[in-house]
Amino acid sequence: MKFTCHKNELVQAIQIVSKAIASKPQTPILSGIYFEAEGDQLELHATDNEIGIISVIPASVEQTGKLVLSGRYMQDVIRRLPGENVTISQEIGENTTKIKSGASNFTFLSMPANEFPTVKRLEEGIHFRIQDNVLRDIVKKTVFACSTDEARPVFTGCQLEINGETLTMAATNTHRLSVKKEVVADLSGDLRIIIPSKLLNELLRALNSDMPTEIDVRCSSNQASFHFDNVVLMSRLIEGQFPNYESVIPKSFDTTITLDTEAFLDAVDRVSLISRAADYNIIRLDFANGNVHISSNSPDIGNADETVAADISGPDVNIAFNAKYVTDVLKNIDSKTFRFLMNKSLQPATIREEDNPTFVYIVTPVRTQN
Amino acid sequence: MKFTCHKNELVQAIQIVSKAIASKPQTPILSGIYFEAEGDQLELHATDNEIGIISVIPASVEQTGKLVLSGRYMQDVIRRLPGENVTISQEIGENTTKIKSGASNFTFLSMPANEFPTVKRLEEGIHFRIQDNVLRDIVKKTVFACSTDEARPVFTGCQLEINGETLTMAATNTHRLSVKKEVVADLSGDLRIIIPSKLLNELLRALNSDMPTEIDVRCSSNQASFHFDNVVLMSRLIEGQFPNYESVIPKSFDTTITLDTEAFLDAVDRVSLISRAADYNIIRLDFANGNVHISSNSPDIGNADETVAADISGPDVNIAFNAKYVTDVLKNIDSKTFRFLMNKSLQPATIREEDNPTFVYIVTPVRTQN
Repeated sequence: MKFTCHKNELVQAIQIVSKAIASKPQTPILSGIYFEAEGDQLELHATDNEIGIISVIPASVEQTGKLVLSGRYMQDVIRRLPGENVTISQEIGENTTKIKSGASNFTFLSMPANEFPTVKRLEEGIHFRIQDNVLRDIVKKTVFACSTDEARPVFTGCQLEINGETLTMAATNTHRLSVKKEVVADLSGDLRIIIPSKLLNELLRALNSDMPTEIDVRCSSNQASFHFDNVVLMSRLIEGQFPNYESVIPKSFDTTITLDTEAFLDAVDRVSLISRAADYNIIRLDFANGNVHISSNSPDIGNADETVAADISGPDVNIAFNAKYVTDVLKNIDSKTFRFLMNKSLQPATIREEDNPTFVYIVTPVRTQN
Repeated sequence: MKFTCHKNELVQAIQIVSKAIASKPQTPILSGIYFEAEGDQLELHATDNEIGIISVIPASVEQTGKLVLSGRYMQDVIRRLPGENVTISQEIGENTTKIKSGASNFTFLSMPANEFPTVKRLEEGIHFRIQDNVLRDIVKKTVFACSTDEARPVFTGCQLEINGETLTMAATNTHRLSVKKEVVADLSGDLRIIIPSKLLNELLRALNSDMPTEIDVRCSSNQASFHFDNVVLMSRLIEGQFPNYESVIPKSFDTTITLDTEAFLDAVDRVSLISRAADYNIIRLDFANGNVHISSNSPDIGNADETVAADISGPDVNIAFNAKYVTDVLKNIDSKTFRFLMNKSLQPATIREEDNPTFVYIVTPVRTQN
């Protein structure tokens, strides 16, 4: 095997696929990056057996072949090479790989390429195309609400539901729920799957191009893949029953409050500097007289309070939340003002963007002593 | 106590003094920052009983006084306050401090100000003034060579020697030695002290102004202080006998090599990507035929080599070093080319800047098997 490619393109490809390598790989081969050179391109694969990433870059291939190198050193080594191009080669039957760029020569022990569980592209299942900014918005507005508790797997992913032309993404950790709907042209089908948040977070990171692009999405009964710009991210799905969340979304409200997103977020962020050291990070919100009084206290540290203007329609409300459950959503919505919709102080509250019915966030208040 | 000051000035002052707070303070009071408001200024103090930092900023003082607040929250809280100014107050006899800025109010439990070991300015000892860029250069070129092994304290600091008008700073970890001399106008005296590297590293960080400034240095038999721009850094000195290093500095050389600093540093940095995972980080340097061949190998990873042009005068040399002991010094010298001066391959080698006799670095080679 022997090929030459642009150093910067190779660095970027390694950076993308490396995200699939587990910090503690289950087997040694899973610590590696698989390289396959054929035709005029190089394919890189990495996987942790749950998610898998492929990146394809142009290469001048002198001799086709495949090899596996430890992911641990590749990024650092390739990035620092002195030349514009990199030549990578391995003699047939050898277990060492030569990397050459400018006056630099590296030789790495390589791993047996035949043993690498290459990432298989998904060919079956529901298939649709979606603009990157639309998909990014759907993922961004939901994935933060997932749980990180591996003991309850269904809450560590987002449910993707396809119902005719409507795509709905939902995430919950049982204390909060985030739901985003989008109508996608040419979409048709009937599907409910749970995609791991790990893959969706990598997708958000990878969808960082300034150039608009379309993403090719495929979903089977046990896998999902996202293909764009010569990158394929894929993942096993999470098995289990996602809760039927529709019944949790309140249909009517006693009090409707409109707030400036940035002013309220900044104030909550500041006031929660006091509470965030505690287990529950509780802030109190007292809505009355055209203001919200935000406060927190900690017996060990002190207390904080701040007042922000609020447009309140309906009875006054005194309510308390985990501050993180409020700031997380406000960091991910885009409207200059937002609506806080409430009933009694121990009933779930709703947050919606101004003039955007496609997004809804439900958060359960906490009971406080005073 | 009550005063008002600029938020940004206060943030910066807190940031500077916080460096003196230990990550695990010996006593609770040492986790605090001491504030003293008097006249038209606010003084902040912090200390870990070894080093101490004072920062002074202008303040509009309504009521003089002093208080101690936990350093842990102050930086985050003050930085995020919404207003341009901050008002801090504490009623006499109370143990809570109010911080107010814009619509934000914080109350923090405070600590007893009388119990704080305030940092005392040094009034005695040798005293001289030195330009910031001169002092920065002296410290930068030596402090990196200190040891971090607390078991042998004298090697964790730099020896400052004053002999008439000549100031000499030296540091060693017994495997390498860095010495920088400077003639300072108006300096006179006879002194040898060991200043902890921790203080010198903070000094480097604090000396980051674009505006030229003069530093007021004072050294007594057990303390040193550096005073500039309303900041005082001071430290206890390290007790013990710094080794007599003059005899270690080779006086003659068999082989003199001139190298391009950046090209050689980059190459050593790359080649050591292979060796740095190992305990000794060994690179081989083979000087011959107008080149240096730099190589490293690790049985578990692979090997690397690179060739850089070298102007060699004298016999060829094959030698090996801990790569870090070579790259550390090259990152801190300023000349475009430098001289590598050697005798036999197991005798200490010398590195000097081109045309700068005031700096010398000695590094002990390592014995390798081949």
